[in-house]
Amino acid sequence: MYRTHTCGELRLNQVSTSVTLAGWVQTVRKFGSITFVDLRDRYGITQLLFGEALQPVLDAQPLGREYVITVTGTVQERSNKNTQIPTGDIEIAVEEFKILNKSAVPPFTITDDTDGGDDIRMKYRYLDLRRNAVKKNLELRYAVNRAARNYLHEQGFMDIETPFLIKSTPEGARDFVVPSRMNAGEFYALPQSPQTFKQLLMVSGYDRYYQIVKCFRDEDLRADRQPEFTQIDCEMAFVEQEDILQMFEGLIKHIFKAVKGIDYTEKVERTTWEEAMWMYGNDKPDIRFGMQLTNLKFPQHTFVNKQVAVPSTTKGNAEHAALESDFAVFNDAETVIAIAAPNCSEYTRKQTDELVEWVKRPQIGMKGLAFIKCNTDGSFKSSIDKFYSEEKLAAIAQACGAQKGDLILLLAGAEERTRKAASELRLEMGKRLNLRNPNEFKLLWVLDFPLFEYAEDDNRWVARHHPFTSPKPSDIATMINNNPAIENAAKYLEHPYANIKANAYDMVLNGNEIGGGSIRIFQRELQEKMFAALGMSPEEALHKFGFLLGAFEYGAPPHGGIAFGFDRLCSILGGSESIRDFIAFPKNNSGRDVMLDAPSSIDDKQLTELSIKLNLA
Amino acid sequence: MYRTHTCGELRLNQVSTSVTLAGWVQTVRKFGSITFVDLRDRYGITQLLFGEALQPVLDAQPLGREYVITVTGTVQERSNKNTQIPTGDIEIAVEEFKILNKSAVPPFTITDDTDGGDDIRMKYRYLDLRRNAVKKNLELRYAVNRAARNYLHEQGFMDIETPFLIKSTPEGARDFVVPSRMNAGEFYALPQSPQTFKQLLMVSGYDRYYQIVKCFRDEDLRADRQPEFTQIDCEMAFVEQEDILQMFEGLIKHIFKAVKGIDYTEKVERTTWEEAMWMYGNDKPDIRFGMQLTNLKFPQHTFVNKQVAVPSTTKGNAEHAALESDFAVFNDAETVIAIAAPNCSEYTRKQTDELVEWVKRPQIGMKGLAFIKCNTDGSFKSSIDKFYSEEKLAAIAQACGAQKGDLILLLAGAEERTRKAASELRLEMGKRLNLRNPNEFKLLWVLDFPLFEYAEDDNRWVARHHPFTSPKPSDIATMINNNPAIENAAKYLEHPYANIKANAYDMVLNGNEIGGGSIRIFQRELQEKMFAALGMSPEEALHKFGFLLGAFEYGAPPHGGIAFGFDRLCSILGGSESIRDFIAFPKNNSGRDVMLDAPSSIDDKQLTELSIKLNLA
Repeated sequence: MYRTHTCGELRLNQVSTSVTLAGWVQTVRKFGSITFVDLRDRYGITQLLFGEALQPVLDAQPLGREYVITVTGTVQERSNKNTQIPTGDIEIAVEEFKILNKSAVPPFTITDDTDGGDDIRMKYRYLDLRRNAVKKNLELRYAVNRAARNYLHEQGFMDIETPFLIKSTPEGARDFVVPSRMNAGEFYALPQSPQTFKQLLMVSGYDRYYQIVKCFRDEDLRADRQPEFTQIDCEMAFVEQEDILQMFEGLIKHIFKAVKGIDYTEKVERTTWEEAMWMYGNDKPDIRFGMQLTNLKFPQHTFVNKQVAVPSTTKGNAEHAALESDFAVFNDAETVIAIAAPNCSEYTRKQTDELVEWVKRPQIGMKGLAFIKCNTDGSFKSSIDKFYSEEKLAAIAQACGAQKGDLILLLAGAEERTRKAASELRLEMGKRLNLRNPNEFKLLWVLDFPLFEYAEDDNRWVARHHPFTSPKPSDIATMINNNPAIENAAKYLEHPYANIKANAYDMVLNGNEIGGGSIRIFQRELQEKMFAALGMSPEEALHKFGFLLGAFEYGAPPHGGIAFGFDRLCSILGGSESIRDFIAFPKNNSGRDVMLDAPSSIDDKQLTELSIKLNLA
Repeated sequence: MYRTHTCGELRLNQVSTSVTLAGWVQTVRKFGSITFVDLRDRYGITQLLFGEALQPVLDAQPLGREYVITVTGTVQERSNKNTQIPTGDIEIAVEEFKILNKSAVPPFTITDDTDGGDDIRMKYRYLDLRRNAVKKNLELRYAVNRAARNYLHEQGFMDIETPFLIKSTPEGARDFVVPSRMNAGEFYALPQSPQTFKQLLMVSGYDRYYQIVKCFRDEDLRADRQPEFTQIDCEMAFVEQEDILQMFEGLIKHIFKAVKGIDYTEKVERTTWEEAMWMYGNDKPDIRFGMQLTNLKFPQHTFVNKQVAVPSTTKGNAEHAALESDFAVFNDAETVIAIAAPNCSEYTRKQTDELVEWVKRPQIGMKGLAFIKCNTDGSFKSSIDKFYSEEKLAAIAQACGAQKGDLILLLAGAEERTRKAASELRLEMGKRLNLRNPNEFKLLWVLDFPLFEYAEDDNRWVARHHPFTSPKPSDIATMINNNPAIENAAKYLEHPYANIKANAYDMVLNGNEIGGGSIRIFQRELQEKMFAALGMSPEEALHKFGFLLGAFEYGAPPHGGIAFGFDRLCSILGGSESIRDFIAFPKNNSGRDVMLDAPSSIDDKQLTELSIKLNLA
């Protein structure tokens, strides 16, 4: 037997007990004729005391960092207690020990503040995983997994496994494919999600399905994307949108409670996609803080994604009036957007210059930034004093709800870029002003997305969510009764499809989309119309999705669902920006596993068996 | 809202309640001016009564089998109760209804005793999944999944996800591979199991890992194999074999209790591989019944897998002596094996002829079968009376422990084939005598497997379990201190490696291997020796498994684990022979998903992006 106890469990009430522990040598400290060793395992650290009698043995078999040993000894009270660790009251007076395995000197220190850079830690991921910081992340991930399963089980959901070797039906993202040896010239695809399978399960009557499941997308990897990622994938039958929202805000609240001890008792806020775009400049707003955007020019024009999106709740033309002047930059701009940054009116020139530089960065791409300081004494000071009288500045301040002491930031330019920049600037100011507290969690449902986006290149519609998303019930007739073809590309916005809203919803947590879903199409005719709208011929639709269209002929129930990005959810709950920190064996930005050195070349024999050959440029 | 209740929950105490139900039309029965409809959902069936007032509406919108409807009405007591179903005391007096979706006539009946053949049910799997028989299997699968997770969680195991896009290291089975677009000419492999990852997690200190995870093997599919299958995959650190056996017989007992309500209080039996081969002729014996094999010739010779395997527990030469006679067939045979079939002494000529035919089938391949009837009056009657006196027959009966009333079956021939045939014959007799009760569950640990098998073609060793399995501690020195090369192929049995036993174990349930595992090698030197023994050059070992060899340099703890075949376990618990019945979307024997029609051809554009082209003969 290697151990009777773990390194995390011994306490004062076990003093005088004879125990055997096993683990890794964290530190070795020699004081004259005695040696202290901190022994570490998954559960904690226990101090070992090697007395004088054992020194010759230790000299013959010296212990080093990360050696694996087993020791037998007696628990005794420490004279010098360590209040930082749960086992800090005791130590083990070692009677005998055995080295189970030696260790070379690790290439970086196994500590929270390791000296190892990202590359070396990834190469030696098995050592990086020993660090407490990483272990805590994987423990959190398991806790989220467990909490999700428990909630869904209680709610009557069944975990049903769906296949990994499926059919390639590229829509949007690229599939990873798998050559079939037994069916020469043919390929499986790895699932981008179990979407069609979970819908079939609803057709089959399973009612409440879930899976925590790997999905695959062969995309060019942005900083924080992985080619394989995990979803909490759910589907329900006989539901409307409201049923889904209730069920899954319940899931997230349960996870908050189980994993973080947070009682999220407040109502989960909701916004429409239009409102979110208008007030925050993006569809996953961080609502831990205000600083909403004010559009100071208010023509009924179009913006991001080229969809009409001025919500009916906007305040009218007051903002527009405030802006009237001879300032050509604002007059010529398609859009002028203002943000009132609270308590920043005393920003120095250096600070405002810094912000100007920030918006000029290529990632933001603006030409400049104007300011209005709303001084605490009620006066105004602005970088555009020349064009705006104090009264005008006051009117602008009023239009964007600025208070005394605020600093108004003004961006002008083309609508889409300016709104995006304003959104980024708002987040940046939120960060600078410490308004984005990682220990505060704010949920938001974003609803009523457009069903379609316009694809300029092909002059056709693409599905904003996916081709299985249902339009709002009130828009079904519009969809069925109109030809999806866009005859006049310049006037695509006048096509009835431009205004169709989807029965879709995203859940946003602290400015991150953590989940998204929709009520699905369950009528064959409507699904066929959707495929046609996306430019698929009836033959292509049948070839790719014949099984689904077929299923809809045999009594498909109304159904809908949602999928949560499990990696992202864990990283936000763990207070981190990076999903890689929450994946045991992640890949780098080139899709490589540097520890395994994968992908790699394979044998010619393998290629031949698979009836493929390389086609290198 | 589509429903207030499910079709499985209404009872007499809800009479007079107004309810809304939704589901599928199972049957429509018209009696004069009223119509009864059985409405089905996941939870049950409820009878609907459409009264006279609704008949015109029904006439205008007739209901058909598998139509999806929602109905509102009042719960009332049935005059004609159905005691077969939990809702049989009540019915719903329908006030209004709505057809949510129509259904074409299904290609087969959605009933337990469906009229649909295998092919059509697989093509319309989404309809097959509606059948109660299939639903019960998937519910059982989920229950096993849940029970396994709960037990492992209580025991401190953590679910840690390992990657699916890994490195191809073909050993034994073929890998499925995935061309990498971003790394032209390179391929990922899909994991045959998370073996090396779970070992790395032990090196990382995670101590108790589990996963219920898909694995992939590109093998020619036998009747009941799937290219993708699910494992309950587990690993522990600081353990010896005994710890693993205790932990995982606990897991299976917990599953028995949670899923089948069975208290498996008896001790789980254990046998060595040698004993199993000797007494049952195979390494996964069904011990629900006896009928052990008796080897009537007892030279110390070799058999199955060409390994020495006569256990020290065999009884000596009594059996051999019993067989002495002039019967050339037995005298010339390498082996003569007897089975005493209980209470079969009165078998008719027709019955024994049938058994002779059975052993002559090509799958069994024996030339004949001899019989000795142990009559209830103490006399003997045999098909080989000519060569054996009554005393000799009595001696043979005694040697194989036959009782009055038994029928002794005797097979003679080459050792390996005869033993295999005897094993099959034993199972067949068990079946014929109803000794293989599907509701009885008998577990068995098979221990002490040979570490190596001899591969004749390459004149080298192959790993019987896998290359990471540790030899028994007492055999480590033998392994380290000998050159694995086999100089004289004819005398490979004299090579010291032929007798090395593995620290490996299989769990057998009712004659099926449901799980297998081993204590792993955790020392770099020993692992290198293993790779060398398998014919891998040091360079190849480093190329394929450098990460593991590297990990063993930094304090790898002793560790071991096990993996259970989840599909198989479910099918045995469900009393079925076929794992396909327990997989939501299985593939056929050509690895095809006939519902999806996958695998399928992919676009040239996809091939080009992946830097491959087809290489069809």
